[in-house]
Amino acid sequence: MLTEKKDVAIAGAGLVGTLLGIYLKKKNYKVTIFDRSADIRKVKFSGRSINLAMSTRGWNALDRVGIGDAIRKIAIPMDKRAIHLKDGSLTFQPYGINGEAIYSISRSGLNRLMVDLAEKEGVNFEFNQKIWDVNLDTATLYIGENEHGPFEQKTFDMVLGADGAFSRIRHRMQRQNRFDYSQYFLNIGYKELTIPPNADGSHKIDPNSFHIWPRGEFMLIALSNDDGSFTCTLFMPFEGENSFEKIHTEEKLNVFFNEYFSDTKDLIPNLQHDYFTNPTSSLVTMQCYPWTYKDKVALIGDSAHAIVPFYGQGMNAGFEDITALSDLLDKFPDDIQMVFEKYQAIRKPNADAIAELSYRNFIEMSTKTADADFLLQKKIEAWFTKLHPEKWLPLYDRVTFSLNPYEDALAIGDSQKMVMDEVMKLPNIHENWQTAEVENYILELLRKNKTDI
Amino acid sequence: MLTEKKDVAIAGAGLVGTLLGIYLKKKNYKVTIFDRSADIRKVKFSGRSINLAMSTRGWNALDRVGIGDAIRKIAIPMDKRAIHLKDGSLTFQPYGINGEAIYSISRSGLNRLMVDLAEKEGVNFEFNQKIWDVNLDTATLYIGENEHGPFEQKTFDMVLGADGAFSRIRHRMQRQNRFDYSQYFLNIGYKELTIPPNADGSHKIDPNSFHIWPRGEFMLIALSNDDGSFTCTLFMPFEGENSFEKIHTEEKLNVFFNEYFSDTKDLIPNLQHDYFTNPTSSLVTMQCYPWTYKDKVALIGDSAHAIVPFYGQGMNAGFEDITALSDLLDKFPDDIQMVFEKYQAIRKPNADAIAELSYRNFIEMSTKTADADFLLQKKIEAWFTKLHPEKWLPLYDRVTFSLNPYEDALAIGDSQKMVMDEVMKLPNIHENWQTAEVENYILELLRKNKTDI
Repeated sequence: MLTEKKDVAIAGAGLVGTLLGIYLKKKNYKVTIFDRSADIRKVKFSGRSINLAMSTRGWNALDRVGIGDAIRKIAIPMDKRAIHLKDGSLTFQPYGINGEAIYSISRSGLNRLMVDLAEKEGVNFEFNQKIWDVNLDTATLYIGENEHGPFEQKTFDMVLGADGAFSRIRHRMQRQNRFDYSQYFLNIGYKELTIPPNADGSHKIDPNSFHIWPRGEFMLIALSNDDGSFTCTLFMPFEGENSFEKIHTEEKLNVFFNEYFSDTKDLIPNLQHDYFTNPTSSLVTMQCYPWTYKDKVALIGDSAHAIVPFYGQGMNAGFEDITALSDLLDKFPDDIQMVFEKYQAIRKPNADAIAELSYRNFIEMSTKTADADFLLQKKIEAWFTKLHPEKWLPLYDRVTFSLNPYEDALAIGDSQKMVMDEVMKLPNIHENWQTAEVENYILELLRKNKTDI
Repeated sequence: MLTEKKDVAIAGAGLVGTLLGIYLKKKNYKVTIFDRSADIRKVKFSGRSINLAMSTRGWNALDRVGIGDAIRKIAIPMDKRAIHLKDGSLTFQPYGINGEAIYSISRSGLNRLMVDLAEKEGVNFEFNQKIWDVNLDTATLYIGENEHGPFEQKTFDMVLGADGAFSRIRHRMQRQNRFDYSQYFLNIGYKELTIPPNADGSHKIDPNSFHIWPRGEFMLIALSNDDGSFTCTLFMPFEGENSFEKIHTEEKLNVFFNEYFSDTKDLIPNLQHDYFTNPTSSLVTMQCYPWTYKDKVALIGDSAHAIVPFYGQGMNAGFEDITALSDLLDKFPDDIQMVFEKYQAIRKPNADAIAELSYRNFIEMSTKTADADFLLQKKIEAWFTKLHPEKWLPLYDRVTFSLNPYEDALAIGDSQKMVMDEVMKLPNIHENWQTAEVENYILELLRKNKTDI
């Protein structure tokens, strides 16, 4: 039986919207993507983005529609963290137990390429089209210049909201009875800074590392771009001792950077300009449910589950929504409502899990990466995983380098933490960690806790 | 120095909006109250309301502007719970340790009277005026027939959102950066039923009791009206074994009521009509912050903190917002922004506390009121309070019959629970509770826990 070719509108020409467009086009849907902004290929980007870290879930979604290799060309592998301590010393911490890498990609570069690829696939783009509302029962979009009208109405068979953390599609869904919703902002904001390339176009520091200056309450990170530059992000509280509020003059900024990030002096020549020109952005965790309405409307990516960026999984989680939705569309092509119901039931617990893991990971990045016990624990986990790969996979690897559900990663990670907390209490663990005694102790704890991978 | 007479708009002519209007009018503000519905004095009410239980905080707010006595005329004191057990037996549990009562008032009756009183005070009402949006910086309302325009714009010195759990004023505030927000719906819904008066206009059951039929997962309650009727509310899960979803035929409804509420057979003659005509309503807890915007906009009552009804404090908490705001306006008449900042800082922790207490109280009403240990515990608390009024005030009394902050009630209530959990473990406590031994044990636990009132 032939499936009717449905007319689908996607709200948002970001990363999730464009990849979703490619997936649906390959299923022979008619696809129109609306975006409130101008074509990203024709404008300068905002200066308020954190570089992306593409990992296994993201690559899987791209490779399944044959565009992974095109994107690998603009991606730079990072196989380790480079930790810049306050005293100027530098240490490296490998990411994967088998040398795996995450990939630095500039958001604007990737987004431009994705629009190209989607257009090539036959997706129709409507830029500068502001969606303000949607009629859920009829999948009708209200489009206009201004929030208060007048509006043009456009009706589709289906509307997919890939319009981000502040989604207008979700905004309408939120006003339904029995729609659960929360948005919580961190007290930490962020600001983009730039390390420009050397005169010869080369990188000033190692491009294959994820650079972190961990300082506890605040931190600086840097991810490489393929033009030799680095996109840096300063994470810092909005208010308090060291905060965006307090550091509001050029002098205070200099004192602060000299004190805490002295080794960046030559790296960020336009510090003053960047700091006082670029906006201070906020970080939100948004959770909601349900994500779909009948067979008419569904949320996907950040519009369904905006998370803080500290696990580097925001885009990866959004891409995994697409593969889950795609599998269900293949399985039940004639029952969109069932597809939507199963899609949200499968993805919601995973979205909640990666939200929690991401929230927790600020502490890991800003504090623990500078902590000797934490580093030893990582080493012990990697050592034990090599000995017993069927019994242990470190949390970071499971989240970043596997397709195992986030939900399982959170649960197993919590069990593993209990085991490692005990192991770290062993006397002389810093000297004797690579011993049969420690190995057997972990095995015993695993048996006791029934913590298998 | 004379304070400039400000032009204030209040969104919502409900209980909080009208009382707030009276307070502001007495401070010589120009007050206009907008409501999206028709004048409640001229229309039939919705059939989706739970009777109100006015208690000390509510009366305090009314008495401070001299309208308490007018409202007492339509209020019926309830000094006890009447517990209808499944076997048909009936027991009574006094509310206050000193015979205090809460007061049953019909929402529509009270609301009509409040509009009258506000009008008499000089408040201007604009009914059938639908507010869809607000400009926060200019305190401009967007009013129109339809959500998608056209709109009439009206600008004020200040806009106060008393427009309830689904507030449009808050809807705009929610879209600000760093605005925290959550709405969570219970899986329990409710439906209004009616016990009509006897032919001679008298009440069919005791009007001075709060009637509860506690059945664990679900329950029925009944509160008296001054026309001899009772407003009943059936609380029940939306889905599951005994649920609104399952009980969807007249036969099933009869079987269900015969099984669980057999003593209501003659009380609710129009059960079938009420059940299948009245809507099934949902219950939401809504929390947000901040509640105010500069010196222009503030939320008050349910629009700032919608809670579930199981402590009977929704209206009382909203009225307490008004007294707090009023005190601050008297203290800082020329600095509205400071008034707003202090108002939200004072009220937010109290709103969160009563939200938590209300959420927990469903279990108390639907399950514990039928439990012998719970009743004994209440007796022991009342007995000990009489002995040591300076050391103990039961949680219910503190919430309902005092003006102590809800925040303290929650914290002290949790400490008291720890004490009572220990006391209830004493051997033969059911026989020996009124002894010096128990008294001294409680005193000892209080010293240990530093739990004073």
